[in-house]
Amino acid sequence: MIIIMEPEATQEQINRVVNKLEENGFRINMNLGDVLTVIAAIGDKRLVQPQSIASLEGVREVKLIQEPFKLASRESKKDDTVIEFSNGVKIGGLNKPVIMAGPCSVEADYNGLLAVAKAVKASGAQILRGGAFKPRTSPYDFQGLEEKGLELLARAKEETGLLIVTEVMDTLDLPLVEEFADIIQIGARNMQNFKLLKAAGKYGKPVMLKRGPAATIREFLLAAEHIMYAGNEQVILCERGVKGIDSTYTRNTLDLAAVPIIHKYSHLPVIVDPSHGTGRRYLIEPMSKAALIAGANGLMIEVHHDPDRASSDGAQSLTIEQFTNMMIDINKIIGRLDWDNKHATIAK
Amino acid sequence: MIIIMEPEATQEQINRVVNKLEENGFRINMNLGDVLTVIAAIGDKRLVQPQSIASLEGVREVKLIQEPFKLASRESKKDDTVIEFSNGVKIGGLNKPVIMAGPCSVEADYNGLLAVAKAVKASGAQILRGGAFKPRTSPYDFQGLEEKGLELLARAKEETGLLIVTEVMDTLDLPLVEEFADIIQIGARNMQNFKLLKAAGKYGKPVMLKRGPAATIREFLLAAEHIMYAGNEQVILCERGVKGIDSTYTRNTLDLAAVPIIHKYSHLPVIVDPSHGTGRRYLIEPMSKAALIAGANGLMIEVHHDPDRASSDGAQSLTIEQFTNMMIDINKIIGRLDWDNKHATIAK
Amino acid sequence: MIIIMEPEATQEQINRVVNKLEENGFRINMNLGDVLTVIAAIGDKRLVQPQSIASLEGVREVKLIQEPFKLASRESKKDDTVIEFSNGVKIGGLNKPVIMAGPCSVEADYNGLLAVAKAVKASGAQILRGGAFKPRTSPYDFQGLEEKGLELLARAKEETGLLIVTEVMDTLDLPLVEEFADIIQIGARNMQNFKLLKAAGKYGKPVMLKRGPAATIREFLLAAEHIMYAGNEQVILCERGVKGIDSTYTRNTLDLAAVPIIHKYSHLPVIVDPSHGTGRRYLIEPMSKAALIAGANGLMIEVHHDPDRASSDGAQSLTIEQFTNMMIDINKIIGRLDWDNKHATIAK
Amino acid sequence: MIIIMEPEATQEQINRVVNKLEENGFRINMNLGDVLTVIAAIGDKRLVQPQSIASLEGVREVKLIQEPFKLASRESKKDDTVIEFSNGVKIGGLNKPVIMAGPCSVEADYNGLLAVAKAVKASGAQILRGGAFKPRTSPYDFQGLEEKGLELLARAKEETGLLIVTEVMDTLDLPLVEEFADIIQIGARNMQNFKLLKAAGKYGKPVMLKRGPAATIREFLLAAEHIMYAGNEQVILCERGVKGIDSTYTRNTLDLAAVPIIHKYSHLPVIVDPSHGTGRRYLIEPMSKAALIAGANGLMIEVHHDPDRASSDGAQSLTIEQFTNMMIDINKIIGRLDWDNKHATIAK
Repeated sequence: MIIIMEPEATQEQINRVVNKLEENGFRINMNLGDVLTVIAAIGDKRLVQPQSIASLEGVREVKLIQEPFKLASRESKKDDTVIEFSNGVKIGGLNKPVIMAGPCSVEADYNGLLAVAKAVKASGAQILRGGAFKPRTSPYDFQGLEEKGLELLARAKEETGLLIVTEVMDTLDLPLVEEFADIIQIGARNMQNFKLLKAAGKYGKPVMLKRGPAATIREFLLAAEHIMYAGNEQVILCERGVKGIDSTYTRNTLDLAAVPIIHKYSHLPVIVDPSHGTGRRYLIEPMSKAALIAGANGLMIEVHHDPDRASSDGAQSLTIEQFTNMMIDINKIIGRLDWDNKHATIAK
Repeated sequence: MIIIMEPEATQEQINRVVNKLEENGFRINMNLGDVLTVIAAIGDKRLVQPQSIASLEGVREVKLIQEPFKLASRESKKDDTVIEFSNGVKIGGLNKPVIMAGPCSVEADYNGLLAVAKAVKASGAQILRGGAFKPRTSPYDFQGLEEKGLELLARAKEETGLLIVTEVMDTLDLPLVEEFADIIQIGARNMQNFKLLKAAGKYGKPVMLKRGPAATIREFLLAAEHIMYAGNEQVILCERGVKGIDSTYTRNTLDLAAVPIIHKYSHLPVIVDPSHGTGRRYLIEPMSKAALIAGANGLMIEVHHDPDRASSDGAQSLTIEQFTNMMIDINKIIGRLDWDNKHATIAK
Repeated sequence: MIIIMEPEATQEQINRVVNKLEENGFRINMNLGDVLTVIAAIGDKRLVQPQSIASLEGVREVKLIQEPFKLASRESKKDDTVIEFSNGVKIGGLNKPVIMAGPCSVEADYNGLLAVAKAVKASGAQILRGGAFKPRTSPYDFQGLEEKGLELLARAKEETGLLIVTEVMDTLDLPLVEEFADIIQIGARNMQNFKLLKAAGKYGKPVMLKRGPAATIREFLLAAEHIMYAGNEQVILCERGVKGIDSTYTRNTLDLAAVPIIHKYSHLPVIVDPSHGTGRRYLIEPMSKAALIAGANGLMIEVHHDPDRASSDGAQSLTIEQFTNMMIDINKIIGRLDWDNKHATIAK
Repeated sequence: MIIIMEPEATQEQINRVVNKLEENGFRINMNLGDVLTVIAAIGDKRLVQPQSIASLEGVREVKLIQEPFKLASRESKKDDTVIEFSNGVKIGGLNKPVIMAGPCSVEADYNGLLAVAKAVKASGAQILRGGAFKPRTSPYDFQGLEEKGLELLARAKEETGLLIVTEVMDTLDLPLVEEFADIIQIGARNMQNFKLLKAAGKYGKPVMLKRGPAATIREFLLAAEHIMYAGNEQVILCERGVKGIDSTYTRNTLDLAAVPIIHKYSHLPVIVDPSHGTGRRYLIEPMSKAALIAGANGLMIEVHHDPDRASSDGAQSLTIEQFTNMMIDINKIIGRLDWDNKHATIAK
């Protein structure tokens, strides 16, 4: 780490910083600038937390040199992580991007769910999404069918052969969700629910972690690190838009540059969710295509058999017909990604 | 709610919106502008969710007229909520602002904690803060002493008579934390951990809810609504800074206008945390004073007996001496708030 | 517009709002909700400014129904604006996307500029970019060659046949820049330099207006409206990233959803600048491709013959070789946009 | 500056960075970490621009050690800048905070302006504000009386003895505005209109520079540096709110921590504008008081004799009566700032 001292820092204050670092095995390099003293310290950040240095008198600023995530970093693992399912579906690396689609919430009408699932299957998608536990901004909104919803997903899985991705909101529900899900989803608003991250890290199922609405990419990768550090390396990241300066025409600002950035700094697969990322039906198709071209390892899209009657997120859900039509183009793009040599969009 | 139709919406699409609203008991008023049709619908938002209207074909936008929070709103309860403790401390309304102070994390060194607690008590503050369960961005940082930490807080409470505010991170830990805490804290990163909000609503202890790093005030009040709707009306709100465009010189942007805004829209007490809100020691004093003048019902401040060795947040913790000195001025301001007639800063 | 009154508004206050609107020819529709009175007023916003209503006692909020821009709106002109140059190049509508490329700043080394211009031409691009007047955050950075730079651009134009886009920073320089430029660029930091917008509106040359670093799309279109209202309808919009919550790995957050949003709300062409939009060389290729797929009418890309010695923006400039290689893929995408039916990504 | 190399940087790439820096007189210190090479270089940033290093192959990131502003920095001048006017008014340092008040726009009704000016004077305020040139988001809004407005301000000045602060929007208007203004205001949307900054630096009149809606404090101080570098050291900074995540209840997020931060990093005086900073009348009083307690050197407040008929910003303007009442409390706070020892809020 680099420590920049205040211009008026005393020699004693400087020594105190140096001693604390040396005591913890850091190697020190010091630059005495004309105005400021700068100390460069090489060592294991886990032994001295940067903020314990930042709090010393006379320190102006501590800058990190190395990214604070390790297991999630490209440096620790050069090869892309590929997550493989028993039915042969693979997520990550240079594998064909996957499509996760389905209703925002699982609702009581199983026939509706099944109609969506069949259309999802027919379109070539591999994974059925649907929320049984629903995080809702207002307590007056539909909160999900919970266990009953999971059972409906299981029936749809049985009938279609699709894999299931569904959200868990709380450590208490994790054993139940884990039983039904092929991929356990941790939602954006729980991205820094660290107890839940750690608990999910104790199970063997792949975890799809959504980026928090105001999380930096570094915080996002550190949240993945919590899961990995707890023992589960099968983490899928999902970009779903961040809070921006403009919420007039969209719900969030979809940060597509996050895709190649994460590919540069991490080996984990990245999925894009244009439904939450924009919140507007007409933006889903252009943003889905753009995400794939930018190198996304998959898409997550909301589809409902009757969006006007959806319990949640109707305004950003595609109808079955809209989804089916869009998938014609999406499949063309997926098929032709190799005219692009695939690698072209992945940082080397 | 107000529904604005697309300029090219058909009469059939307009009728469909109107019918759906009328079927649910809404009264309709329609304006046929030169370019756009506007439908105003008066009724109970809980019967028709705005987004189920927003998803209808031909709808451009749905605007809410009434705030979506009810129990937390000033309209539902004109008088300020005052939370009273058995030892006579009161938070809210025109009561003297309270001071919550203590270390970021409770650490193993009980003598350090006790020294802080005694100084906190001596300064006139009423509440000891200290984290036993610690949400940490990195898995490599100190994660808290958990139950052991709660026991140390209990000892410090016994010796000083201070009330205890401490954080809970997960529903599983709630029974334990509830046993030790006088005020249960829900942290910024769990502001939309809805399972935790609901669970905390089932207990009788006051809950201090911190504003999420990117939460709008409306989302903040809706999060409080979750707790209240679950049965617990003793909610204290805590402004602690939001993510801003500038993180060079501060950790967050402290949004002091939130204090009078919340006083206008809600009856709940509002506390300000300048330690997290700025992340810099030298900013705590000016921002503490400014918060009080802006009408805050209290402050939450990090103090450590040896910040350079703190397990967390050392750089923004005051030393005991710095805190004690600052409290001289703070107490003067609290004492003289009546030259201001107190009400002056509270929206009428 | 919709006026929402405070719950405690008096009948007299309500009447005052209604009278003021009626006096100005607005038609009024009033809804007396259980809690709030809502007034819907249809009329010409130019006769009564919304904020003059918002300032009346008892008014809680004024919401606009119609977008405040008119000339720039899709409603006022259904067909896409296409800007045509004497050499046949067209920007906008379903025309082939254009490529603008060249150095950030024009520098004294004409041979370098010419080498770039020749490579730009050879790649199939149509327009040479290069700054002679340079807005720089620091006064110690290179400020541009001014007139001399314009002359160098003119020479490069003569040798290659490329069109020239170059920035103007001040009304005083406008006659000079206008003489040399085929497209006058107004930079992001001058997006709300209204005197400059109006002055540029007095000239006949197309204006490329860059989105301000924190401008909403509505503010962006209103800035275009200033130019159009002053008499110049040839406006090209340029998305170049907005300030986001995360500036660790990028300079800005490129808001690609702005492309289809602007296509929905406006008839003006939209260009994307991935160089400023990301600030990182390795992100330019994936973001360029994504922008095209999202429906952009063109790209603006920084290329330098020797980025390590560039006077500005070296870190985000491509070398001639990198640019040439990237254009192979870009041209493939442009060529195959019709597998997509072109319209697919443009909101209907 | 500190240069962090990519983990896979070659020795040749490292040498190239080192050579370029040494050729320009930098002293080099190199740390070979286990994973990354870090180069610390001490020298004059003006000789090698950091971005010309950032663009070299193999460089991951360049971090600045010293703030890029010099003339505006506290390091270059320890003592607070105090701006003194011929009538004895002083702005800055430990002088009594000044109050600038008046209408947003100067309007044709001189009696209204005079009524405001007299009330401003009677309240103890020193400076009359009023816009003759008005930057307006929409071209359909009132654009200001220009020269006629300046003449009205001059008459009000003559009758009351107040100093005048008024905005200039363009270099062309600068000679005219300079003739009438005691303080030349450069508005938020022109904060990075560098031509205007430089031009204003050529005149001898004090300049009040407003913070851009998305400007970091560093960018703000660099904008001041442009004025100072052009020869004018009399710069007053004005915090007026930044774009935040929440524009439901306020127009901007007033960043009061900017006051003590600027006092730490710069010697220039800082004024706060709670009118634009919040956009809501009821927030002006609490935020004005909070700004003073946080150490502001003055306030800028909008007052109108008839806000309902104001040409601009009526909703955030106080009536004469509201202003007069508020000033009773404000004057009390100003009078008692010394119970606080004044210095208390200024970083040492």
